[in-house]
Amino acid sequence: MEVLNDILGYKNRKIFQNDQFFSFSLDSVILANFARIRYSDKKILDLGTGNGIIPLILSLKTKQKIVGVEIQEKLALMAEKSICYNNLQEQISIINCDMKEYVSSDTINTFDFITCNPPYFEFDESSTINLSLEKAIARHEIKIKLAEIILIARKLLKNNGKFAMVHRTDRLFEILDLFKKNKIEPKRIRFIYDSSLKESSLFFIEGSKNGKTGLTVEKPMILYNLDGSMTDEYKTMIEEV
Amino acid sequence: MEVLNDILGYKNRKIFQNDQFFSFSLDSVILANFARIRYSDKKILDLGTGNGIIPLILSLKTKQKIVGVEIQEKLALMAEKSICYNNLQEQISIINCDMKEYVSSDTINTFDFITCNPPYFEFDESSTINLSLEKAIARHEIKIKLAEIILIARKLLKNNGKFAMVHRTDRLFEILDLFKKNKIEPKRIRFIYDSSLKESSLFFIEGSKNGKTGLTVEKPMILYNLDGSMTDEYKTMIEEV
Repeated sequence: MEVLNDILGYKNRKIFQNDQFFSFSLDSVILANFARIRYSDKKILDLGTGNGIIPLILSLKTKQKIVGVEIQEKLALMAEKSICYNNLQEQISIINCDMKEYVSSDTINTFDFITCNPPYFEFDESSTINLSLEKAIARHEIKIKLAEIILIARKLLKNNGKFAMVHRTDRLFEILDLFKKNKIEPKRIRFIYDSSLKESSLFFIEGSKNGKTGLTVEKPMILYNLDGSMTDEYKTMIEEV
Repeated sequence: MEVLNDILGYKNRKIFQNDQFFSFSLDSVILANFARIRYSDKKILDLGTGNGIIPLILSLKTKQKIVGVEIQEKLALMAEKSICYNNLQEQISIINCDMKEYVSSDTINTFDFITCNPPYFEFDESSTINLSLEKAIARHEIKIKLAEIILIARKLLKNNGKFAMVHRTDRLFEILDLFKKNKIEPKRIRFIYDSSLKESSLFFIEGSKNGKTGLTVEKPMILYNLDGSMTDEYKTMIEEV
Protein backbone atom coordinates (compact mmCIF):
# COMPACT_ATOMS: atom_id res chain seq x y z
CA MET A 1 0.00 0.00 0.00
CA GLU A 2 1.31 3.43 -0.82
CA VAL A 3 1.38 5.80 2.09
CA LEU A 4 2.51 9.35 2.53
CA ASN A 5 4.97 9.34 5.40
CA ASP A 6 6.77 11.98 7.25
CA ILE A 7 10.44 11.65 6.59
CA LEU A 8 11.24 10.72 10.14
CA GLY A 9 11.21 13.99 11.98
CA TYR A 10 11.78 16.10 8.88
CA LYS A 11 8.55 17.90 9.47
CA ASN A 12 8.64 20.00 6.33
CA ARG A 13 9.42 17.09 4.04
CA LYS A 14 6.93 14.33 3.26
CA ILE A 15 7.67 11.21 1.31
CA PHE A 16 5.65 8.52 -0.43
CA GLN A 17 6.55 4.94 0.35
CA ASN A 18 5.15 1.60 -0.67
CA ASP A 19 5.97 -1.34 1.51
CA GLN A 20 5.68 -3.74 -1.41
CA PHE A 21 8.47 -2.05 -3.35
CA PHE A 22 10.73 -0.11 -1.11
CA SER A 23 10.97 1.72 2.17
CA PHE A 24 13.83 4.06 2.69
CA SER A 25 16.32 3.05 5.35
CA LEU A 26 17.79 5.03 8.19
CA ASP A 27 21.12 4.44 6.49
CA SER A 28 20.05 6.91 3.81
CA VAL A 29 19.12 9.46 6.48
CA ILE A 30 22.56 9.03 8.06
CA LEU A 31 24.28 9.37 4.67
CA ALA A 32 22.39 12.54 3.78
CA ASN A 33 23.23 14.01 7.18
CA PHE A 34 26.93 13.17 7.14
CA ALA A 35 27.52 14.33 3.56
CA ARG A 36 29.41 17.61 3.82
CA ILE A 37 27.90 19.61 0.97
CA ARG A 38 29.86 22.81 0.40
CA TYR A 39 28.35 26.15 -0.51
CA SER A 40 30.29 26.00 -3.77
CA ASP A 41 28.78 22.63 -4.78
CA LYS A 42 26.50 23.57 -7.67
CA LYS A 43 25.49 20.16 -9.02
CA ILE A 44 24.61 17.24 -6.80
CA LEU A 45 23.69 13.70 -7.80
CA ASP A 46 22.20 10.76 -5.92
CA LEU A 47 22.88 7.43 -7.62
CA GLY A 48 20.11 4.85 -7.09
CA THR A 49 17.85 7.32 -5.37
CA GLY A 50 14.95 4.93 -4.61
CA ASN A 51 11.97 6.97 -3.48
CA GLY A 52 14.11 10.10 -3.32
CA ILE A 53 14.86 10.19 0.39
CA ILE A 54 18.42 11.46 -0.01
CA PRO A 55 17.64 14.37 -2.38
CA LEU A 56 14.69 15.32 -0.14
CA ILE A 57 16.97 15.61 2.89
CA LEU A 58 19.82 17.25 0.95
CA SER A 59 17.38 19.93 -0.20
CA LEU A 60 17.30 21.09 3.43
CA LYS A 61 21.08 21.65 3.31
CA THR A 62 21.54 23.29 -0.09
CA LYS A 63 19.60 25.36 -2.57
CA GLN A 64 21.54 23.96 -5.54
CA LYS A 65 20.27 21.52 -8.16
CA ILE A 66 19.99 17.88 -7.19
CA VAL A 67 19.52 15.00 -9.63
CA GLY A 68 18.35 11.54 -8.54
CA VAL A 69 18.84 8.56 -10.87
CA GLU A 70 16.70 5.47 -10.31
CA ILE A 71 16.44 2.35 -12.47
CA GLN A 72 13.06 1.17 -11.15
CA GLU A 73 10.18 3.04 -12.74
CA LYS A 74 7.76 2.64 -9.83
CA LEU A 75 10.31 4.06 -7.41
CA ALA A 76 11.23 6.93 -9.73
CA LEU A 77 7.50 7.79 -9.96
CA MET A 78 7.17 7.71 -6.18
CA ALA A 79 10.17 9.99 -5.86
CA GLU A 80 8.64 12.41 -8.35
CA LYS A 81 5.35 12.43 -6.46
CA SER A 82 7.13 13.29 -3.23
CA ILE A 83 9.08 16.05 -4.94
CA CYS A 84 5.85 17.54 -6.30
CA TYR A 85 4.14 17.23 -2.95
CA ASN A 86 7.00 19.12 -1.31
CA ASN A 87 7.01 21.63 -4.15
CA LEU A 88 10.66 21.00 -4.97
CA GLN A 89 10.37 20.45 -8.74
CA GLU A 90 12.63 23.42 -9.40
CA GLN A 91 15.45 21.98 -7.32
CA ILE A 92 15.23 18.21 -7.66
CA SER A 93 14.87 16.19 -10.85
CA ILE A 94 14.48 12.44 -11.03
CA ILE A 95 15.77 10.50 -14.00
CA ASN A 96 14.41 7.01 -14.53
CA CYS A 97 17.29 5.12 -16.09
CA ASP A 98 20.07 2.66 -15.41
CA MET A 99 22.93 4.66 -13.91
CA LYS A 100 25.26 3.00 -16.43
CA GLU A 101 23.35 4.75 -19.20
CA TYR A 102 23.42 8.05 -17.36
CA VAL A 103 27.14 8.35 -18.11
CA SER A 104 27.48 10.37 -21.34
CA SER A 105 29.46 13.24 -22.79
CA ASP A 106 26.83 15.54 -21.24
CA THR A 107 27.26 14.25 -17.73
CA ILE A 108 30.91 13.24 -17.26
CA ASN A 109 33.03 15.56 -15.11
CA THR A 110 30.01 17.67 -14.22
CA PHE A 111 29.06 16.88 -10.60
CA ASP A 112 30.46 18.49 -7.45
CA PHE A 113 28.98 15.99 -5.03
CA ILE A 114 27.61 12.48 -5.52
CA THR A 115 25.86 10.36 -2.91
CA CYS A 116 24.95 6.69 -3.07
CA ASN A 117 23.35 4.19 -0.70
CA PRO A 118 24.06 1.14 -2.85
CA PRO A 119 22.77 -2.44 -2.69
CA TYR A 120 24.73 -4.00 0.18
CA PHE A 121 24.85 -7.67 -0.73
CA GLU A 122 26.76 -9.50 -3.39
CA PHE A 123 24.72 -11.61 -5.77
CA ASP A 124 25.33 -14.62 -7.91
CA GLU A 125 23.12 -17.25 -9.41
CA SER A 126 23.29 -19.37 -6.27
CA SER A 127 22.05 -16.52 -4.02
CA THR A 128 18.66 -17.18 -2.52
CA ILE A 129 16.61 -14.06 -2.06
CA ASN A 130 13.47 -13.92 -0.03
CA LEU A 131 12.16 -10.66 -1.37
CA SER A 132 10.14 -9.21 -4.19
CA LEU A 133 12.33 -8.43 -7.20
CA GLU A 134 11.82 -4.70 -6.55
CA LYS A 135 13.18 -4.95 -3.02
CA ALA A 136 15.91 -7.38 -4.06
CA ILE A 137 17.24 -4.90 -6.64
CA ALA A 138 17.63 -2.29 -3.93
CA ARG A 139 19.41 -4.67 -1.53
CA HIS A 140 21.42 -7.00 -3.75
CA GLU A 141 23.95 -6.35 -6.51
CA ILE A 142 21.62 -7.68 -9.19
CA LYS A 143 21.54 -4.78 -11.62
CA ILE A 144 24.90 -3.31 -10.74
CA LYS A 145 28.00 -4.15 -8.73
CA LEU A 146 29.83 -1.93 -6.29
CA ALA A 147 32.92 -1.63 -8.52
CA GLU A 148 30.71 -0.35 -11.35
CA ILE A 149 29.00 2.22 -9.13
CA ILE A 150 32.30 3.65 -7.93
CA LEU A 151 33.63 3.81 -11.49
CA ILE A 152 30.47 5.65 -12.56
CA ALA A 153 30.87 8.08 -9.66
CA ARG A 154 34.45 8.72 -10.71
CA LYS A 155 33.42 9.46 -14.28
CA LEU A 156 30.60 11.82 -13.29
CA LEU A 157 32.57 13.79 -10.68
CA LYS A 158 34.43 16.96 -11.44
CA ASN A 159 38.05 17.12 -10.38
CA ASN A 160 38.05 17.40 -6.55
CA GLY A 161 34.36 16.52 -6.51
CA LYS A 162 33.21 14.46 -3.52
CA PHE A 163 31.64 11.01 -3.38
CA ALA A 164 29.82 9.92 -0.21
CA MET A 165 28.49 6.46 0.51
CA VAL A 166 27.28 4.26 3.34
CA HIS A 167 28.03 0.55 3.28
CA ARG A 168 28.49 -2.52 5.44
CA THR A 169 31.61 -2.45 7.60
CA ASP A 170 32.58 -5.99 6.64
CA ARG A 171 33.28 -4.65 3.14
CA LEU A 172 35.61 -1.90 4.41
CA PHE A 173 38.80 -3.01 2.70
CA GLU A 174 37.13 -3.67 -0.64
CA ILE A 175 35.58 -0.21 -0.59
CA LEU A 176 38.78 1.61 0.39
CA ASP A 177 40.57 -0.32 -2.33
CA LEU A 178 37.97 0.57 -4.98
CA PHE A 179 38.05 4.23 -3.95
CA LYS A 180 41.86 4.22 -4.25
CA LYS A 181 41.87 2.40 -7.59
CA ASN A 182 39.39 4.92 -8.97
CA LYS A 183 41.46 7.81 -7.59
CA ILE A 184 38.69 8.88 -5.25
CA GLU A 185 40.88 9.50 -2.22
CA PRO A 186 39.18 8.46 1.06
CA LYS A 187 39.07 11.57 3.27
CA ARG A 188 36.44 10.94 5.97
CA ILE A 189 35.10 7.77 7.56
CA ARG A 190 32.60 7.44 10.38
CA PHE A 191 31.85 4.05 11.84
CA ILE A 192 28.29 3.52 13.04
CA TYR A 193 27.71 1.34 16.10
CA ASP A 194 24.31 0.25 17.43
CA SER A 195 25.66 0.82 20.94
CA SER A 196 29.02 1.47 22.55
CA LEU A 197 29.28 -2.28 23.23
CA LYS A 198 28.47 -3.49 19.71
CA GLU A 199 30.64 -3.98 16.69
CA SER A 200 30.12 -1.64 13.75
CA SER A 201 27.79 -2.92 11.05
CA LEU A 202 27.73 0.20 8.90
CA PHE A 203 30.09 3.01 7.95
CA PHE A 204 30.03 6.31 6.14
CA ILE A 205 32.81 7.23 3.73
CA GLU A 206 33.49 10.41 1.77
CA GLY A 207 36.27 10.71 -0.79
CA SER A 208 37.61 13.35 -3.12
CA LYS A 209 38.34 12.74 -6.83
CA ASN A 210 42.10 13.12 -7.33
CA GLY A 211 42.34 14.45 -3.75
CA LYS A 212 45.44 14.38 -1.59
CA THR A 213 45.93 11.46 0.79
CA GLY A 214 44.86 12.10 4.37
CA LEU A 215 42.12 10.06 5.99
CA THR A 216 40.29 11.00 9.17
CA VAL A 217 38.29 8.40 11.09
CA GLU A 218 35.83 10.76 12.74
CA LYS A 219 34.21 10.30 16.16
CA PRO A 220 32.12 7.15 16.47
CA MET A 221 28.40 7.44 15.68
CA ILE A 222 26.54 5.52 18.37
CA LEU A 223 22.82 5.03 17.81
CA TYR A 224 21.51 3.79 21.16
CA ASN A 225 22.48 4.33 24.78
CA LEU A 226 22.94 1.27 26.96
CA ASP A 227 19.42 1.75 28.39
CA GLY A 228 18.02 1.39 24.85
CA SER A 229 17.15 5.07 24.36
CA MET A 230 18.45 6.91 21.31
CA THR A 231 21.65 8.91 21.71
CA ASP A 232 21.30 12.66 21.41
CA GLU A 233 23.11 12.70 18.08
CA TYR A 234 20.84 10.08 16.55
CA LYS A 235 17.71 11.67 18.01
CA THR A 236 18.66 15.04 16.62
CA MET A 237 19.31 13.49 13.25
CA ILE A 238 16.01 11.71 12.89
CA GLU A 239 13.70 13.96 14.90
CA GLU A 240 14.78 17.48 14.14
CA VAL A 241 16.17 19.54 11.33
CA MET B 1 68.15 8.10 34.61
CA GLU B 2 67.14 4.51 34.86
CA VAL B 3 64.20 3.87 37.12
CA LEU B 4 62.29 0.80 38.08
CA ASN B 5 58.68 1.55 37.38
CA ASP B 6 55.49 -0.24 37.98
CA ILE B 7 53.98 -1.22 34.72
CA LEU B 8 51.02 1.04 35.12
CA GLY B 9 48.73 -0.84 37.45
CA TYR B 10 50.25 -4.25 36.73
CA LYS B 11 51.23 -4.65 40.33
CA ASN B 12 53.03 -7.93 39.95
CA ARG B 13 55.10 -6.77 37.02
CA LYS B 14 57.88 -4.17 37.32
CA ILE B 15 59.77 -2.65 34.43
CA PHE B 16 62.99 -0.71 34.03
CA GLN B 17 62.79 2.44 31.98
CA ASN B 18 65.24 5.15 31.06
CA ASP B 19 63.84 8.47 29.93
CA GLN B 20 66.88 9.16 27.80
CA PHE B 21 66.38 6.10 25.65
CA PHE B 22 62.85 4.93 25.74
CA SER B 23 59.68 4.89 27.78
CA PHE B 24 57.02 2.44 26.87
CA SER B 25 53.79 3.90 25.56
CA LEU B 26 50.23 3.19 26.55
CA ASP B 27 49.78 2.03 22.97
CA SER B 28 51.83 -1.05 23.85
CA VAL B 29 49.64 -1.68 26.88
CA ILE B 30 46.54 -1.47 24.68
CA LEU B 31 48.08 -3.80 22.08
CA ALA B 32 49.04 -6.41 24.68
CA ASN B 33 45.55 -6.25 26.16
CA PHE B 34 43.67 -6.51 22.87
CA ALA B 35 45.79 -9.34 21.46
CA ARG B 36 43.64 -12.46 21.65
CA ILE B 37 46.21 -15.12 22.57
CA ARG B 38 44.68 -18.58 22.33
CA TYR B 39 45.38 -21.43 24.69
CA SER B 40 46.86 -23.34 21.76
CA ASP B 41 49.39 -20.59 20.93
CA LYS B 42 52.70 -22.16 21.93
CA LYS B 43 55.21 -19.67 20.55
CA ILE B 44 54.74 -15.93 20.78
CA LEU B 45 56.97 -13.18 19.39
CA ASP B 46 57.13 -9.43 19.93
CA LEU B 47 58.92 -7.60 17.12
CA GLY B 48 60.78 -4.47 18.26
CA THR B 49 60.09 -5.15 21.91
CA GLY B 50 61.82 -2.05 23.34
CA ASN B 51 62.12 -2.46 27.10
CA GLY B 52 59.93 -5.56 26.97
CA ILE B 53 56.62 -4.08 27.99
CA ILE B 54 54.55 -6.27 25.67
CA PRO B 55 56.09 -9.65 26.67
CA LEU B 56 55.80 -8.61 30.35
CA ILE B 57 52.05 -8.01 29.96
CA LEU B 58 51.50 -11.04 27.73
CA SER B 59 53.08 -13.22 30.42
CA LEU B 60 50.02 -12.44 32.52
CA LYS B 61 47.79 -13.95 29.81
CA THR B 62 49.73 -17.05 28.80
CA LYS B 63 52.24 -19.48 30.25
CA GLN B 64 53.78 -20.22 26.83
CA LYS B 65 57.19 -19.07 25.58
CA ILE B 66 57.53 -15.46 24.49
CA VAL B 67 60.44 -14.06 22.47
CA GLY B 68 61.17 -10.34 22.19
CA VAL B 69 63.47 -9.05 19.43
CA GLU B 70 65.08 -5.64 19.86
CA ILE B 71 67.73 -3.98 17.68
CA GLN B 72 68.97 -1.48 20.31
CA GLU B 73 71.36 -3.07 22.76
CA LYS B 74 70.59 -0.72 25.66
CA LEU B 75 66.90 -1.43 25.37
CA ALA B 76 67.40 -5.17 25.06
CA LEU B 77 69.50 -5.06 28.24
CA MET B 78 66.80 -3.10 30.06
CA ALA B 79 64.22 -5.65 28.92
CA GLU B 80 66.40 -8.48 30.23
CA LYS B 81 66.83 -6.75 33.57
CA SER B 82 63.07 -6.42 33.94
CA ILE B 83 62.56 -10.06 33.02
CA CYS B 84 65.08 -11.11 35.66
CA TYR B 85 63.55 -8.83 38.24
CA ASN B 86 60.14 -10.38 37.59
CA ASN B 87 61.68 -13.85 37.58
CA LEU B 88 60.38 -14.64 34.10
CA GLN B 89 63.62 -15.89 32.49
CA GLU B 90 62.04 -19.27 31.86
CA GLN B 91 59.18 -17.80 29.89
CA ILE B 92 60.55 -14.72 28.12
CA SER B 93 63.76 -14.46 26.11
CA ILE B 94 65.10 -11.27 24.58
CA ILE B 95 67.18 -11.39 21.42
CA ASN B 96 69.27 -8.34 20.60
CA CYS B 97 69.32 -8.23 16.82
CA ASP B 98 67.84 -6.55 13.79
CA MET B 99 64.51 -8.27 13.16
CA LYS B 100 65.54 -8.65 9.51
CA GLU B 101 68.33 -10.95 10.65
CA TYR B 102 66.00 -12.87 12.93
CA VAL B 103 64.38 -14.46 9.87
CA SER B 104 66.16 -17.75 9.22
CA SER B 105 65.40 -21.37 8.43
CA ASP B 106 65.12 -21.92 12.21
CA THR B 107 62.47 -19.26 12.73
CA ILE B 108 60.28 -19.15 9.62
CA ASN B 109 56.79 -20.63 9.96
CA THR B 110 57.28 -21.21 13.69
CA PHE B 111 55.22 -18.58 15.56
CA ASP B 112 51.56 -18.82 16.55
CA PHE B 113 51.18 -15.18 17.52
CA ILE B 114 53.27 -12.10 16.72
CA THR B 115 52.79 -8.62 18.16
CA CYS B 116 54.40 -5.37 17.07
CA ASN B 117 54.12 -1.75 18.11
CA PRO B 118 56.18 -0.36 15.23
CA PRO B 119 57.72 3.05 14.61
CA TYR B 120 54.78 5.22 13.54
CA PHE B 121 56.34 7.85 11.34
CA GLU B 122 57.79 7.65 7.88
CA PHE B 123 61.34 8.83 7.48
CA ASP B 124 63.44 10.20 4.68
CA GLU B 125 66.56 12.28 4.50
CA SER B 126 64.55 15.50 4.69
CA SER B 127 62.80 14.48 7.94
CA THR B 128 63.77 16.62 10.91
CA ILE B 129 63.78 14.74 14.18
CA ASN B 130 64.00 16.41 17.52
CA LEU B 131 64.90 13.34 19.52
CA SER B 132 67.89 11.32 20.60
CA LEU B 133 68.76 8.67 18.02
CA GLU B 134 67.57 5.98 20.44
CA LYS B 135 64.13 7.50 20.73
CA ALA B 136 64.02 8.35 17.04
CA ILE B 137 64.60 4.71 16.08
CA ALA B 138 61.57 3.68 18.15
CA ARG B 139 59.32 6.36 16.63
CA HIS B 140 60.50 6.75 13.05
CA GLU B 141 61.02 4.25 10.25
CA ILE B 142 64.79 4.70 10.31
CA LYS B 143 65.97 1.12 10.73
CA ILE B 144 62.97 -0.56 9.18
CA LYS B 145 59.85 0.29 7.21
CA LEU B 146 56.32 -0.89 7.86
CA ALA B 147 56.21 -3.00 4.69
CA GLU B 148 59.34 -4.84 5.82
CA ILE B 149 57.93 -5.53 9.29
CA ILE B 150 54.72 -7.01 7.89
CA LEU B 151 56.68 -9.17 5.45
CA ILE B 152 58.85 -10.42 8.33
CA ALA B 153 55.74 -11.20 10.38
CA ARG B 154 54.34 -13.16 7.46
CA LYS B 155 57.51 -15.21 7.14
CA LEU B 156 57.74 -16.00 10.85
CA LEU B 157 54.07 -16.93 11.33
CA LYS B 158 52.77 -20.44 11.08
CA ASN B 159 49.83 -21.01 8.79
CA ASN B 160 46.79 -19.44 10.52
CA GLY B 161 49.11 -17.71 12.98
CA LYS B 162 47.99 -14.28 14.16
CA PHE B 163 49.66 -10.90 13.80
CA ALA B 164 48.53 -8.00 16.01
CA MET B 165 49.63 -4.41 15.72
CA VAL B 166 48.71 -0.90 16.79
CA HIS B 167 49.29 2.00 14.43
CA ARG B 168 48.14 5.49 13.53
CA THR B 169 44.66 5.65 12.04
CA ASP B 170 45.77 7.93 9.22
CA ARG B 171 47.73 4.96 7.82
CA LEU B 172 44.68 2.65 7.87
CA PHE B 173 44.47 1.95 4.15
CA GLU B 174 48.19 1.35 3.74
CA ILE B 175 48.14 -1.14 6.61
CA LEU B 176 45.06 -3.03 5.38
CA ASP B 177 46.65 -3.15 1.95
CA LEU B 178 49.97 -4.48 3.30
CA PHE B 179 48.18 -7.11 5.38
CA LYS B 180 46.23 -8.21 2.28
CA LYS B 181 49.29 -8.25 0.02
CA ASN B 182 51.13 -10.40 2.58
CA LYS B 183 48.11 -12.71 2.91
CA ILE B 184 47.62 -11.79 6.54
CA GLU B 185 43.85 -11.47 6.40
CA PRO B 186 42.55 -8.60 8.58
CA LYS B 187 40.09 -10.14 11.07
CA ARG B 188 39.66 -7.65 13.94
CA ILE B 189 40.03 -3.89 14.15
CA ARG B 190 39.36 -1.62 17.12
CA PHE B 191 39.55 2.12 16.70
CA ILE B 192 40.79 4.05 19.72
CA TYR B 193 39.34 7.48 20.41
CA ASP B 194 40.55 9.91 23.08
CA SER B 195 36.90 10.75 23.77
CA SER B 196 33.55 10.08 22.14
CA LEU B 197 33.84 13.50 20.46
CA LYS B 198 37.34 13.07 19.04
CA GLU B 199 38.56 11.48 15.86
CA SER B 200 40.55 8.26 16.14
CA SER B 201 44.31 8.66 16.22
CA LEU B 202 45.20 5.02 16.84
CA PHE B 203 43.84 1.60 15.95
CA PHE B 204 44.44 -2.01 16.81
CA ILE B 205 44.45 -4.65 14.07
CA GLU B 206 44.76 -8.43 14.21
CA GLY B 207 45.08 -10.61 11.14
CA SER B 208 45.43 -14.29 10.36
CA LYS B 209 48.05 -15.70 7.97
CA ASN B 210 46.19 -17.25 5.03
CA GLY B 211 42.93 -16.73 6.96
CA LYS B 212 39.48 -16.45 5.43
CA THR B 213 38.11 -13.00 4.67
CA GLY B 214 35.75 -11.56 7.28
CA LEU B 215 36.61 -8.37 9.12
CA THR B 216 34.95 -7.18 12.33
CA VAL B 217 35.29 -3.58 13.45
CA GLU B 218 34.81 -4.13 17.17
CA LYS B 219 33.23 -1.73 19.66
CA PRO B 220 35.00 1.63 19.90
CA MET B 221 37.68 1.97 22.59
CA ILE B 222 37.16 5.33 24.25
CA LEU B 223 39.87 6.44 26.66
CA TYR B 224 38.35 9.41 28.49
CA ASN B 225 34.85 10.43 29.50
CA LEU B 226 33.69 13.92 28.60
CA ASP B 227 34.49 15.10 32.16
CA GLY B 228 38.14 14.09 31.59
CA SER B 229 38.04 10.99 33.80
CA MET B 230 39.19 7.65 32.41
CA THR B 231 36.51 5.35 31.03
CA ASP B 232 35.96 2.14 32.97
CA GLU B 233 37.51 0.05 30.19
CA TYR B 234 40.69 2.11 30.07
CA LYS B 235 40.94 2.27 33.85
CA THR B 236 40.60 -1.48 34.15
CA MET B 237 43.25 -1.93 31.49
CA ILE B 238 45.88 0.24 33.07
CA GLU B 239 45.07 -0.11 36.76
CA GLU B 240 44.11 -3.70 37.27
CA VAL B 241 44.93 -7.11 35.97
